[in-house]
Amino acid sequence: MRNIAVFLRYDGTDFHGFQVQKNAVSVQETLQNALEELFGHETTVCGCSRTDAGVHARMYCALTKTDTAIPTKGIVQGLNALLPDSVAAYKAYEVGDDFHPRYSAISKEYEYRIYYGKARNPFCDRYAYWHPRTFNASLLEKAAPYFEGTHDFCGFMASGSAIVDTVRTVYSCRAEVDAENEQICIRIRANGFLYNMVRIIVGTLLDVASGKIPFDTLSDVIDSKDRSKAGFTAPAKGLSLIDIEYEKGIFGE
Amino acid sequence: MRNIAVFLRYDGTDFHGFQVQKNAVSVQETLQNALEELFGHETTVCGCSRTDAGVHARMYCALTKTDTAIPTKGIVQGLNALLPDSVAAYKAYEVGDDFHPRYSAISKEYEYRIYYGKARNPFCDRYAYWHPRTFNASLLEKAAPYFEGTHDFCGFMASGSAIVDTVRTVYSCRAEVDAENEQICIRIRANGFLYNMVRIIVGTLLDVASGKIPFDTLSDVIDSKDRSKAGFTAPAKGLSLIDIEYEKGIFGE
Repeated sequence: MRNIAVFLRYDGTDFHGFQVQKNAVSVQETLQNALEELFGHETTVCGCSRTDAGVHARMYCALTKTDTAIPTKGIVQGLNALLPDSVAAYKAYEVGDDFHPRYSAISKEYEYRIYYGKARNPFCDRYAYWHPRTFNASLLEKAAPYFEGTHDFCGFMASGSAIVDTVRTVYSCRAEVDAENEQICIRIRANGFLYNMVRIIVGTLLDVASGKIPFDTLSDVIDSKDRSKAGFTAPAKGLSLIDIEYEKGIFGE
Repeated sequence: MRNIAVFLRYDGTDFHGFQVQKNAVSVQETLQNALEELFGHETTVCGCSRTDAGVHARMYCALTKTDTAIPTKGIVQGLNALLPDSVAAYKAYEVGDDFHPRYSAISKEYEYRIYYGKARNPFCDRYAYWHPRTFNASLLEKAAPYFEGTHDFCGFMASGSAIVDTVRTVYSCRAEVDAENEQICIRIRANGFLYNMVRIIVGTLLDVASGKIPFDTLSDVIDSKDRSKAGFTAPAKGLSLIDIEYEKGIFGE
Protein backbone atom coordinates (compact mmCIF):
# COMPACT_ATOMS: atom_id res chain seq x y z
CA MET A 1 0.00 0.00 0.00
CA ARG A 2 1.16 3.56 -0.73
CA ASN A 3 1.02 6.15 2.09
CA ILE A 4 -0.21 9.50 0.79
CA ALA A 5 0.05 12.74 2.78
CA VAL A 6 -2.55 15.18 1.47
CA PHE A 7 -2.33 18.90 2.29
CA LEU A 8 -5.67 20.70 2.58
CA ARG A 9 -7.29 24.03 3.32
CA TYR A 10 -10.79 24.21 4.77
CA ASP A 11 -13.31 26.75 5.95
CA GLY A 12 -14.59 25.18 9.18
CA THR A 13 -17.78 27.27 9.44
CA ASP A 14 -20.11 24.54 8.25
CA PHE A 15 -18.27 21.52 9.70
CA HIS A 16 -18.54 19.96 13.13
CA GLY A 17 -14.76 19.78 13.37
CA PHE A 18 -12.27 17.49 11.68
CA GLN A 19 -13.06 14.18 13.36
CA VAL A 20 -15.89 11.90 12.24
CA GLN A 21 -19.01 12.31 14.39
CA LYS A 22 -22.41 10.69 14.40
CA ASN A 23 -25.19 12.84 12.87
CA ALA A 24 -22.86 15.74 11.99
CA VAL A 25 -20.77 16.59 8.94
CA SER A 26 -17.02 16.46 9.62
CA VAL A 27 -14.06 17.32 7.40
CA GLN A 28 -12.71 13.78 7.89
CA GLU A 29 -15.88 12.13 6.61
CA THR A 30 -16.10 14.56 3.68
CA LEU A 31 -12.48 13.82 2.76
CA GLN A 32 -12.88 10.05 3.18
CA ASN A 33 -15.93 10.03 0.92
CA ALA A 34 -14.06 11.91 -1.80
CA LEU A 35 -10.99 9.64 -1.51
CA GLU A 36 -13.14 6.49 -1.63
CA GLU A 37 -14.83 7.72 -4.80
CA LEU A 38 -11.44 8.54 -6.32
CA PHE A 39 -9.66 5.32 -5.22
CA GLY A 40 -12.56 2.94 -5.66
CA HIS A 41 -11.83 1.33 -2.28
CA GLU A 42 -12.53 2.09 1.37
CA THR A 43 -10.04 4.24 3.25
CA THR A 44 -9.62 5.88 6.66
CA VAL A 45 -7.70 9.13 6.99
CA CYS A 46 -5.62 10.21 9.94
CA GLY A 47 -5.33 13.97 10.55
CA CYS A 48 -2.68 16.23 12.07
CA SER A 49 -5.08 17.82 14.58
CA ARG A 50 -8.60 17.39 15.94
CA THR A 51 -9.81 20.88 15.10
CA ASP A 52 -13.09 21.85 16.81
CA ALA A 53 -16.35 22.79 15.12
CA GLY A 54 -15.93 26.17 13.41
CA VAL A 55 -12.10 26.14 13.42
CA HIS A 56 -10.47 26.74 10.03
CA ALA A 57 -7.27 25.40 8.46
CA ARG A 58 -5.10 27.15 5.89
CA MET A 59 -2.72 24.19 6.13
CA TYR A 60 -3.79 20.73 7.25
CA CYS A 61 -2.11 17.37 6.68
CA ALA A 62 -4.10 14.13 6.42
CA LEU A 63 -2.68 10.65 5.74
CA THR A 64 -4.42 8.05 3.61
CA LYS A 65 -3.46 4.67 2.13
CA THR A 66 -4.19 3.37 -1.33
CA ASP A 67 -3.19 0.60 -3.71
CA THR A 68 -4.20 2.62 -6.77
CA ALA A 69 -1.53 3.91 -9.17
CA ILE A 70 -2.99 7.45 -9.35
CA PRO A 71 -0.02 9.87 -9.21
CA THR A 72 -0.01 12.47 -6.40
CA LYS A 73 -0.87 15.29 -8.84
CA GLY A 74 -3.89 13.32 -10.00
CA ILE A 75 -4.98 12.78 -6.39
CA VAL A 76 -4.97 16.57 -5.81
CA GLN A 77 -6.90 17.24 -9.03
CA GLY A 78 -9.35 14.40 -8.44
CA LEU A 79 -10.02 15.48 -4.85
CA ASN A 80 -10.65 19.09 -5.87
CA ALA A 81 -13.25 17.93 -8.37
CA LEU A 82 -15.02 15.83 -5.70
CA LEU A 83 -14.71 17.97 -2.53
CA PRO A 84 -17.23 20.73 -1.69
CA ASP A 85 -16.21 24.42 -2.12
CA SER A 86 -15.28 24.69 1.56
CA VAL A 87 -12.45 22.11 1.34
CA ALA A 88 -9.58 22.01 -1.16
CA ALA A 89 -6.40 19.97 -1.54
CA TYR A 90 -3.27 21.75 -2.73
CA LYS A 91 -0.48 19.18 -2.52
CA ALA A 92 0.05 15.44 -2.01
CA TYR A 93 3.21 13.43 -1.32
CA GLU A 94 4.04 9.75 -1.13
CA VAL A 95 5.57 9.17 2.32
CA GLY A 96 7.23 6.35 4.27
CA ASP A 97 5.51 3.98 6.69
CA ASP A 98 6.86 5.88 9.71
CA PHE A 99 5.18 9.18 8.79
CA HIS A 100 2.36 10.32 11.07
CA PRO A 101 0.60 13.67 10.39
CA ARG A 102 0.50 14.47 14.10
CA TYR A 103 3.54 12.80 15.68
CA SER A 104 5.95 13.66 12.86
CA ALA A 105 5.19 17.37 13.26
CA ILE A 106 7.96 19.44 14.87
CA SER A 107 5.75 22.48 15.44
CA LYS A 108 2.38 23.93 14.51
CA GLU A 109 1.20 27.51 14.23
CA TYR A 110 -2.28 28.85 14.90
CA GLU A 111 -3.71 32.26 14.11
CA TYR A 112 -6.55 33.89 16.04
CA ARG A 113 -8.40 36.93 14.69
CA ILE A 114 -10.35 39.43 16.78
CA TYR A 115 -12.50 42.16 15.24
CA TYR A 116 -13.02 44.99 17.72
CA GLY A 117 -15.04 47.49 15.67
CA LYS A 118 -18.19 48.88 17.29
CA ALA A 119 -20.52 47.85 14.45
CA ARG A 120 -21.19 44.39 13.08
CA ASN A 121 -18.93 43.61 10.09
CA PRO A 122 -20.04 41.13 7.40
CA PHE A 123 -16.44 40.48 6.33
CA CYS A 124 -15.45 39.30 9.81
CA ASP A 125 -18.45 37.01 10.43
CA ARG A 126 -16.77 33.75 9.45
CA TYR A 127 -13.13 34.24 10.41
CA ALA A 128 -12.97 36.56 13.40
CA TYR A 129 -14.40 36.83 16.91
CA TRP A 130 -16.32 40.08 17.32
CA HIS A 131 -15.28 41.57 20.68
CA PRO A 132 -16.41 45.21 20.59
CA ARG A 133 -15.85 45.96 24.26
CA THR A 134 -13.19 48.51 25.09
CA PHE A 135 -9.79 47.11 25.86
CA ASN A 136 -6.19 48.19 25.65
CA ALA A 137 -4.91 46.69 22.40
CA SER A 138 -1.29 47.71 23.00
CA LEU A 139 -1.41 45.95 26.40
CA LEU A 140 -2.54 42.83 24.56
CA GLU A 141 0.46 43.14 22.21
CA LYS A 142 2.74 43.54 25.25
CA ALA A 143 1.20 40.55 27.10
CA ALA A 144 1.37 37.99 24.28
CA PRO A 145 5.12 37.17 24.52
CA TYR A 146 4.68 36.19 28.20
CA PHE A 147 3.37 32.84 26.93
CA GLU A 148 6.62 32.10 25.10
CA GLY A 149 8.94 29.45 26.55
CA THR A 150 8.45 26.06 28.18
CA HIS A 151 5.57 26.04 30.67
CA ASP A 152 3.21 23.57 32.26
CA PHE A 153 0.06 24.74 30.46
CA CYS A 154 -2.37 22.62 32.47
CA GLY A 155 -4.27 25.81 33.45
CA PHE A 156 -4.77 26.44 29.73
CA MET A 157 -6.51 23.21 28.87
CA ALA A 158 -10.24 22.46 28.75
CA SER A 159 -11.22 20.68 31.95
CA GLY A 160 -11.86 16.96 31.54
CA SER A 161 -8.86 16.30 29.27
CA ALA A 162 -7.13 12.97 29.92
CA ILE A 163 -3.67 14.30 28.92
CA VAL A 164 -0.99 13.66 31.57
CA ASP A 165 2.02 15.57 30.23
CA THR A 166 0.87 19.18 29.99
CA VAL A 167 4.27 20.79 29.43
CA ARG A 168 4.59 22.48 26.05
CA THR A 169 7.12 24.83 24.49
CA VAL A 170 5.71 27.95 22.85
CA TYR A 171 8.27 29.18 20.33
CA SER A 172 6.48 32.43 19.62
CA CYS A 173 3.30 34.19 20.69
CA ARG A 174 2.78 37.60 19.13
CA ALA A 175 -0.20 39.88 18.67
CA GLU A 176 -0.43 42.53 15.99
CA VAL A 177 -3.02 45.31 15.80
CA ASP A 178 -4.38 46.27 12.37
CA ALA A 179 -5.95 49.62 13.29
CA GLU A 180 -7.25 50.32 9.76
CA ASN A 181 -9.42 47.20 9.83
CA GLU A 182 -10.00 47.26 13.62
CA GLN A 183 -8.58 43.77 13.94
CA ILE A 184 -6.02 41.98 16.09
CA CYS A 185 -4.13 38.98 14.77
CA ILE A 186 -2.52 36.66 17.33
CA ARG A 187 -0.09 33.98 16.10
CA ILE A 188 1.15 31.15 18.33
CA ARG A 189 3.72 28.51 17.35
CA ALA A 190 4.48 25.62 19.69
CA ASN A 191 5.78 22.06 19.68
CA GLY A 192 2.25 20.95 20.58
CA PHE A 193 -1.05 22.25 21.91
CA LEU A 194 -3.40 21.06 24.65
CA TYR A 195 -7.15 20.92 24.05
CA ASN A 196 -8.45 24.54 23.71
CA MET A 197 -5.02 25.92 24.66
CA VAL A 198 -4.93 28.66 22.00
CA ARG A 199 -8.51 29.72 22.69
CA ILE A 200 -7.84 29.98 26.46
CA ILE A 201 -4.59 31.90 25.87
CA VAL A 202 -6.53 34.34 23.64
CA GLY A 203 -9.30 34.69 26.27
CA THR A 204 -6.63 35.38 28.90
CA LEU A 205 -4.98 38.02 26.70
CA LEU A 206 -8.37 39.72 26.23
CA ASP A 207 -8.99 39.61 30.00
CA VAL A 208 -5.59 41.24 30.58
CA ALA A 209 -6.32 43.87 27.91
CA SER A 210 -9.68 44.72 29.50
CA GLY A 211 -8.19 44.89 33.02
CA LYS A 212 -10.03 41.83 34.34
CA ILE A 213 -6.70 40.09 34.93
CA PRO A 214 -4.09 42.61 36.17
CA PHE A 215 -1.12 42.72 33.79
CA ASP A 216 1.41 42.32 36.62
CA THR A 217 -0.18 39.01 37.69
CA LEU A 218 0.03 37.41 34.24
CA SER A 219 3.24 35.47 34.96
CA ASP A 220 1.65 34.08 38.13
CA VAL A 221 -1.52 33.12 36.22
CA ILE A 222 0.60 31.21 33.66
CA ASP A 223 2.56 29.42 36.40
CA SER A 224 -0.50 28.73 38.60
CA LYS A 225 -1.60 25.68 36.54
CA ASP A 226 -5.10 26.68 37.64
CA ARG A 227 -7.77 26.84 34.92
CA SER A 228 -9.95 29.11 37.08
CA LYS A 229 -7.24 31.81 37.17
CA ALA A 230 -6.87 31.90 33.37
CA GLY A 231 -9.29 33.74 31.07
CA PHE A 232 -12.36 32.61 29.16
CA THR A 233 -12.27 30.27 26.15
CA ALA A 234 -12.43 32.49 23.06
CA PRO A 235 -14.90 31.25 20.38
CA ALA A 236 -13.77 28.74 17.73
CA LYS A 237 -14.58 30.83 14.63
CA GLY A 238 -11.56 33.15 15.12
CA LEU A 239 -9.10 30.24 15.09
CA SER A 240 -7.16 28.87 12.10
CA LEU A 241 -4.39 26.29 11.88
CA ILE A 242 -1.96 28.02 9.52
CA ASP A 243 1.27 26.01 9.49
CA ILE A 244 2.69 22.60 10.37
CA GLU A 245 6.43 22.13 10.35
CA TYR A 246 7.79 18.65 9.50
CA GLU A 247 11.36 17.40 9.47
CA LYS A 248 13.23 18.36 6.33
CA GLY A 249 13.37 15.63 3.70
CA ILE A 250 10.15 13.89 4.73
CA PHE A 251 8.52 14.93 1.48
CA GLY A 252 11.65 14.38 -0.59
CA GLU A 253 12.24 18.10 -1.01
CA MET B 1 -37.91 65.73 6.66
CA ARG B 2 -34.44 64.80 7.92
CA ASN B 3 -31.84 63.61 5.38
CA ILE B 4 -29.82 60.71 6.77
CA ALA B 5 -26.60 59.41 5.17
CA VAL B 6 -26.04 55.81 6.24
CA PHE B 7 -22.65 54.14 5.83
CA LEU B 8 -22.73 50.40 5.16
CA ARG B 9 -20.59 47.37 4.46
CA TYR B 10 -21.96 44.44 2.47
CA ASP B 11 -20.87 41.09 1.15
CA GLY B 12 -22.29 41.14 -2.39
CA THR B 13 -22.08 37.37 -2.98
CA ASP B 14 -25.78 36.69 -2.49
CA PHE B 15 -27.16 39.96 -3.88
CA HIS B 16 -28.07 40.91 -7.42
CA GLY B 17 -26.25 44.22 -7.05
CA PHE B 18 -27.25 47.36 -5.18
CA GLN B 19 -30.17 48.55 -7.27
CA VAL B 20 -33.72 47.23 -6.89
CA GLN B 21 -34.57 44.58 -9.47
CA LYS B 22 -37.63 42.53 -10.23
CA ASN B 23 -37.47 38.92 -8.95
CA ALA B 24 -33.98 39.30 -7.43
CA VAL B 25 -32.73 40.34 -4.00
CA SER B 26 -30.85 43.65 -4.07
CA VAL B 27 -29.02 45.51 -1.30
CA GLN B 28 -31.26 48.54 -1.89
CA GLU B 29 -34.46 46.60 -1.32
CA THR B 30 -33.00 44.86 1.74
CA LEU B 31 -31.97 48.23 3.18
CA GLN B 32 -35.29 49.89 2.35
CA ASN B 33 -37.23 47.09 4.05
CA ALA B 34 -35.14 47.45 7.22
CA LEU B 35 -35.49 51.26 7.23
CA GLU B 36 -39.26 51.07 6.71
CA GLU B 37 -39.58 48.69 9.64
CA LEU B 38 -37.44 51.01 11.76
CA PHE B 39 -39.10 54.28 10.70
CA GLY B 40 -42.66 53.00 10.40
CA HIS B 41 -43.08 54.78 7.06
CA GLU B 42 -42.17 54.13 3.42
CA THR B 43 -38.79 55.32 2.20
CA THR B 44 -36.62 55.15 -0.90
CA VAL B 45 -32.85 55.12 -0.62
CA CYS B 46 -30.38 56.60 -3.05
CA GLY B 47 -26.94 54.95 -3.25
CA CYS B 48 -23.44 56.17 -4.09
CA SER B 49 -22.86 53.55 -6.79
CA ARG B 50 -24.77 50.91 -8.76
CA THR B 51 -22.57 47.99 -7.82
CA ASP B 52 -23.09 44.88 -9.95
CA ALA B 53 -24.22 41.46 -8.75
CA GLY B 54 -21.42 39.90 -6.68
CA VAL B 55 -19.52 43.15 -6.05
CA HIS B 56 -18.77 43.90 -2.37
CA ALA B 57 -18.56 47.16 -0.43
CA ARG B 58 -16.43 47.85 2.62
CA MET B 59 -17.71 51.44 2.51
CA TYR B 60 -20.99 52.43 0.89
CA CYS B 61 -23.09 55.55 1.41
CA ALA B 62 -26.89 55.53 1.04
CA LEU B 63 -29.24 58.46 1.60
CA THR B 64 -32.67 58.15 3.15
CA LYS B 65 -35.32 60.57 4.45
CA THR B 66 -37.37 60.29 7.59
CA ASP B 67 -39.63 62.37 9.83
CA THR B 68 -38.93 60.17 12.86
CA ALA B 69 -36.89 61.53 15.76
CA ILE B 70 -34.64 58.44 16.06
CA PRO B 71 -31.08 59.70 16.66
CA THR B 72 -28.40 58.64 14.15
CA LYS B 73 -26.81 56.20 16.66
CA GLY B 74 -30.20 54.54 17.10
CA ILE B 75 -30.61 54.25 13.33
CA VAL B 76 -27.30 52.35 13.11
CA GLN B 77 -28.22 50.05 16.01
CA GLY B 78 -31.76 49.50 14.76
CA LEU B 79 -30.58 48.72 11.23
CA ASN B 80 -28.02 46.21 12.45
CA ALA B 81 -30.71 44.36 14.36
CA LEU B 82 -32.94 44.22 11.26
CA LEU B 83 -30.46 43.68 8.40
CA PRO B 84 -29.23 40.17 7.42
CA ASP B 85 -25.67 39.07 8.36
CA SER B 86 -24.35 40.07 4.93
CA VAL B 87 -25.15 43.80 5.36
CA ALA B 88 -24.21 46.06 8.28
CA ALA B 89 -24.42 49.79 9.00
CA TYR B 90 -21.54 51.40 10.88
CA LYS B 91 -22.28 55.12 10.89
CA ALA B 92 -25.10 57.56 10.12
CA TYR B 93 -25.11 61.35 9.79
CA GLU B 94 -27.81 63.98 9.38
CA VAL B 95 -26.95 65.91 6.20
CA GLY B 96 -28.18 68.97 4.30
CA ASP B 97 -30.65 68.99 1.41
CA ASP B 98 -27.87 69.43 -1.14
CA PHE B 99 -26.06 66.20 -0.20
CA HIS B 100 -26.10 63.44 -2.81
CA PRO B 101 -24.25 60.14 -2.11
CA ARG B 102 -23.00 59.99 -5.70
CA TYR B 103 -22.64 63.59 -6.90
CA SER B 104 -21.18 64.92 -3.64
CA ALA B 105 -18.33 62.39 -3.82
CA ILE B 106 -14.93 63.80 -4.73
CA SER B 107 -13.36 60.41 -5.36
CA LYS B 108 -13.96 56.71 -4.89
CA GLU B 109 -11.55 53.82 -4.46
CA TYR B 110 -12.06 50.22 -5.58
CA GLU B 111 -10.00 47.17 -4.72
CA TYR B 112 -9.71 44.10 -6.93
CA ARG B 113 -8.28 40.81 -5.62
CA ILE B 114 -6.80 38.05 -7.77
CA TYR B 115 -5.83 34.65 -6.36
CA TYR B 116 -3.27 32.99 -8.62
CA GLY B 117 -2.51 29.75 -6.73
CA LYS B 118 -2.65 26.52 -8.72
CA ALA B 119 -5.17 24.80 -6.43
CA ARG B 120 -8.67 25.92 -5.54
CA ASN B 121 -8.70 27.94 -2.27
CA PRO B 122 -11.83 28.02 -0.04
CA PHE B 123 -10.73 31.32 1.55
CA CYS B 124 -10.65 33.10 -1.80
CA ASP B 125 -13.99 31.83 -3.13
CA ARG B 126 -16.08 34.85 -2.20
CA TYR B 127 -13.68 37.78 -2.48
CA ALA B 128 -11.11 37.01 -5.17
CA TYR B 129 -11.01 36.00 -8.82
CA TRP B 130 -9.14 32.72 -9.24
CA HIS B 131 -6.79 33.15 -12.21
CA PRO B 132 -4.29 30.28 -11.98
CA ARG B 133 -2.77 30.72 -15.42
CA THR B 134 0.88 31.74 -15.56
CA PHE B 135 1.52 35.43 -15.87
CA ASN B 136 4.21 37.90 -14.95
CA ALA B 137 3.04 39.45 -11.69
CA SER B 138 5.82 42.05 -11.58
CA LEU B 139 4.85 43.18 -15.10
CA LEU B 140 1.30 43.67 -13.78
CA GLU B 141 2.69 45.84 -10.95
CA LYS B 142 4.67 47.84 -13.49
CA ALA B 143 1.69 48.28 -15.85
CA ALA B 144 -0.89 49.48 -13.29
CA PRO B 145 0.33 53.12 -12.97
CA TYR B 146 -0.09 53.60 -16.76
CA PHE B 147 -3.82 54.11 -16.04
CA GLU B 148 -3.13 57.08 -13.77
CA GLY B 149 -3.98 60.57 -15.06
CA THR B 150 -6.82 62.06 -17.07
CA HIS B 151 -7.85 59.89 -20.00
CA ASP B 152 -10.86 59.30 -22.18
CA PHE B 153 -11.74 55.83 -20.84
CA CYS B 154 -14.41 55.08 -23.43
CA GLY B 155 -12.51 51.90 -24.40
CA PHE B 156 -12.85 50.79 -20.77
CA MET B 157 -16.62 50.91 -20.56
CA ALA B 158 -19.13 48.11 -21.14
CA SER B 159 -20.60 48.53 -24.62
CA GLY B 160 -24.14 49.85 -24.69
CA SER B 161 -23.59 52.54 -22.03
CA ALA B 162 -25.42 55.78 -22.71
CA ILE B 163 -22.75 57.94 -20.98
CA VAL B 164 -21.50 60.81 -23.18
CA ASP B 165 -18.61 62.24 -21.17
CA THR B 166 -16.15 59.37 -20.79
CA VAL B 167 -13.18 61.37 -19.51
CA ARG B 168 -12.14 60.43 -15.98
CA THR B 169 -9.15 61.22 -13.79
CA VAL B 170 -7.49 58.25 -12.13
CA TYR B 171 -5.59 59.54 -9.08
CA SER B 172 -3.84 56.26 -8.39
CA CYS B 173 -3.75 52.74 -9.81
CA ARG B 174 -1.38 50.38 -8.05
CA ALA B 175 -1.01 46.60 -7.88
CA GLU B 176 0.68 44.78 -5.04
CA VAL B 177 1.72 41.12 -5.03
CA ASP B 178 1.26 39.14 -1.79
CA ALA B 179 3.47 36.15 -2.66
CA GLU B 180 2.82 34.32 0.66
CA ASN B 181 -0.91 34.12 -0.07
CA GLU B 182 -0.51 33.97 -3.88
CA GLN B 183 -2.71 37.03 -4.29
CA ILE B 184 -2.58 40.33 -6.13
CA CYS B 185 -4.39 43.38 -4.80
CA ILE B 186 -5.13 46.20 -7.26
CA ARG B 187 -6.39 49.53 -5.90
CA ILE B 188 -7.81 52.26 -8.15
CA ARG B 189 -8.92 55.72 -7.00
CA ALA B 190 -10.61 58.10 -9.45
CA ASN B 191 -12.99 61.05 -9.56
CA GLY B 192 -15.54 58.73 -11.16
CA PHE B 193 -15.85 55.37 -12.89
CA LEU B 194 -17.58 54.26 -16.08
CA TYR B 195 -19.68 51.10 -16.13
CA ASN B 196 -17.32 48.08 -15.67
CA MET B 197 -14.27 50.38 -15.89
CA VAL B 198 -12.36 48.75 -13.00
CA ARG B 199 -13.12 45.23 -14.19
CA ILE B 200 -11.93 46.04 -17.75
CA ILE B 201 -8.77 47.74 -16.43
CA VAL B 202 -8.05 44.61 -14.35
CA GLY B 203 -8.69 42.33 -17.35
CA THR B 204 -6.33 44.50 -19.43
CA LEU B 205 -3.63 44.31 -16.73
CA LEU B 206 -3.96 40.51 -16.69
CA ASP B 207 -3.74 40.40 -20.50
CA VAL B 208 -0.55 42.50 -20.34
CA ALA B 209 0.86 40.25 -17.59
CA SER B 210 0.17 37.12 -19.65
CA GLY B 211 1.67 38.62 -22.83
CA LYS B 212 -1.62 38.77 -24.74
CA ILE B 213 -1.35 42.57 -24.90
CA PRO B 214 2.32 43.59 -25.44
CA PHE B 215 3.50 45.83 -22.60
CA ASP B 216 4.91 48.46 -24.98
CA THR B 217 1.48 48.91 -26.63
CA LEU B 218 -0.37 49.59 -23.35
CA SER B 219 -0.28 53.40 -23.69
CA ASP B 220 -1.73 53.08 -27.20
CA VAL B 221 -4.46 50.71 -25.96
CA ILE B 222 -5.46 53.24 -23.28
CA ASP B 223 -5.53 56.12 -25.80
CA SER B 224 -7.26 54.08 -28.52
CA LYS B 225 -10.76 54.53 -27.00
CA ASP B 226 -11.47 51.14 -28.55
CA ARG B 227 -13.13 48.53 -26.34
CA SER B 228 -11.93 45.72 -28.61
CA LYS B 229 -8.25 46.63 -27.98
CA ALA B 230 -8.64 46.51 -24.18
CA GLY B 231 -8.68 43.29 -22.16
CA PHE B 232 -11.50 41.08 -20.90
CA THR B 233 -13.95 42.09 -18.18
CA ALA B 234 -12.67 40.50 -14.95
CA PRO B 235 -15.41 38.81 -12.85
CA ALA B 236 -17.43 40.81 -10.30
CA LYS B 237 -16.58 38.74 -7.20
CA GLY B 238 -13.02 40.13 -6.95
CA LEU B 239 -14.26 43.73 -6.78
CA SER B 240 -14.96 45.80 -3.64
CA LEU B 241 -15.79 49.47 -3.22
CA ILE B 242 -13.51 50.42 -0.33
CA ASP B 243 -13.60 54.21 0.05
CA ILE B 244 -15.64 57.27 -0.90
CA GLU B 245 -14.16 60.70 -0.29
CA TYR B 246 -16.58 63.57 0.43
CA GLU B 247 -15.87 67.24 0.94
CA LYS B 248 -14.66 68.04 4.44
CA GLY B 249 -17.33 69.32 6.78
CA ILE B 250 -20.26 67.60 5.04
CA PHE B 251 -20.74 65.35 8.06
CA GLY B 252 -20.02 68.12 10.55
CA GLU B 253 -16.64 66.66 11.51
